[in-house]
Amino acid sequence: MKTIGFIGLGVMGQSMARNLLQAGYDLLVHTRTKEKAEELLRAGAVWKETVRELAREADVVITMVGYPQDVEAVYFGENGLIENVKENTYLIDMTTSPPSLAEKIYDEAKKRKVFALDAPVSGGDVGAREGRLAIMVGGDEAAFHECKPIFEALGTNIVFQGKAGAGQHAKMCNQIAIATNMIGVCEALIYAKRSGLDPYKVLESISQGAAGSWSLSQLAPRMLAGDFAPGFYVKHFIKDMKIALEEAEKMNLQLPGLSLAKKMYEELAASGEENSGTHALYKHYDHS
Amino acid sequence: MKTIGFIGLGVMGQSMARNLLQAGYDLLVHTRTKEKAEELLRAGAVWKETVRELAREADVVITMVGYPQDVEAVYFGENGLIENVKENTYLIDMTTSPPSLAEKIYDEAKKRKVFALDAPVSGGDVGAREGRLAIMVGGDEAAFHECKPIFEALGTNIVFQGKAGAGQHAKMCNQIAIATNMIGVCEALIYAKRSGLDPYKVLESISQGAAGSWSLSQLAPRMLAGDFAPGFYVKHFIKDMKIALEEAEKMNLQLPGLSLAKKMYEELAASGEENSGTHALYKHYDHS
Repeated sequence: MKTIGFIGLGVMGQSMARNLLQAGYDLLVHTRTKEKAEELLRAGAVWKETVRELAREADVVITMVGYPQDVEAVYFGENGLIENVKENTYLIDMTTSPPSLAEKIYDEAKKRKVFALDAPVSGGDVGAREGRLAIMVGGDEAAFHECKPIFEALGTNIVFQGKAGAGQHAKMCNQIAIATNMIGVCEALIYAKRSGLDPYKVLESISQGAAGSWSLSQLAPRMLAGDFAPGFYVKHFIKDMKIALEEAEKMNLQLPGLSLAKKMYEELAASGEENSGTHALYKHYDHS
Repeated sequence: MKTIGFIGLGVMGQSMARNLLQAGYDLLVHTRTKEKAEELLRAGAVWKETVRELAREADVVITMVGYPQDVEAVYFGENGLIENVKENTYLIDMTTSPPSLAEKIYDEAKKRKVFALDAPVSGGDVGAREGRLAIMVGGDEAAFHECKPIFEALGTNIVFQGKAGAGQHAKMCNQIAIATNMIGVCEALIYAKRSGLDPYKVLESISQGAAGSWSLSQLAPRMLAGDFAPGFYVKHFIKDMKIALEEAEKMNLQLPGLSLAKKMYEELAASGEENSGTHALYKHYDHS
């Protein structure tokens, strides 16, 4: 397990790949836009022109791409991972993607004597950079233990959640809790502002108590400052909420809070904010 | 400012009154049900049979009653505080009640050369017992400073929020943030359970990151254990949400998250849970 192939070098992927290099792994990289790999190549990573080439040489392949269709293409497309990896390779999808897709990857991998784990993360760009991600893992527990040193190079809160898909389901729980709370944070702030209060004094009163949350402490000040840079993109959050609602529907489970959040975020994206940070939901309330 | 009259000895009021006694104030007490005062009387408080009697002897009067109509009755009813307190008395309403009512008390008090502050609290039964409440204060700043030693006997996070009503408005912000986040916490947990995950492992993954909140850390474990004892009553939370929505309507402000929360809590109360803790919202999702 010395050679890791890393596919997908967005903001998260680049930081994660760098941490693997620094931990001493041999790193093969591939991504759609080669320029995004340049810094890593200077640091010692090896470029692979195709997924197929990368697959042939890696002991472990990590994918950190964008949307479910990207995951589908990388694993099942022509020249994809499933067809081309060696026996006993470990495939780790760290993209947030549907639990059902994680199960499909697991099943197809197993037929070829390949191990698959779903291991989505939480912690954002900062967590990725500092190697302090939360990693939620689904698949076979033995495979999880084999890959644990790799996860430890990327994160600090590493939890085996259960069988294939369980990592993705756990990530959905994370997004569900964030989505609805964001509405509450925005509504508390806009109420503060419109009722004539000093919103910073209100935060002083409410951030440490029962109303307290990571979003209230970390994102409310950015909302008030008008700083809506991502963090985490509105467009990716909508993707995650769609997955969660589709899964909930399969379970015959109503999630009115999440449904409301998704609707509001879709309106926000339609107004031109899809590349803003998730805390731009505040603009849904405050047009000043 | 040696003699404090305390009106309203519910769970919160009893603990707060005890902390004032321990801080060395002379304490006069009155409440609807005299038995609730017995422990305090044994500890040195003096019983007053009527609001009027208490008003005549106190330098400061603190009210901690239930609903807006109770506040109205204590201040403006026959033999109420406004008619009967001495000049230069400080009237402090620590009940969560409408900002407009706080303004009315302030105006009527001022006409009689009496000072009024609205000073609702957050921190629940535990915060009250341990003298660690958050106290949000509205009124004249000079009056706030005069009363600060009293607040310091009751809480640790004491913030002057602005003119009369501002304390109540700040408390509304607190309740707004809590209400909508509670929906998110419940939906994350029910999703975890229904998708076959171990909800405790999910909490391990998500509680410390961007999904983290006081409610997720403190109340989710109680939801999972089926422990729905209050904490804070569903019926009182509904009262607070009604006030916040009425105030928002006056500002022409839509709060869809809070509206959803109020609707869900009203359904919960109608199903017989009005005396449960606010985290009983989980029962709205989990009927097992």
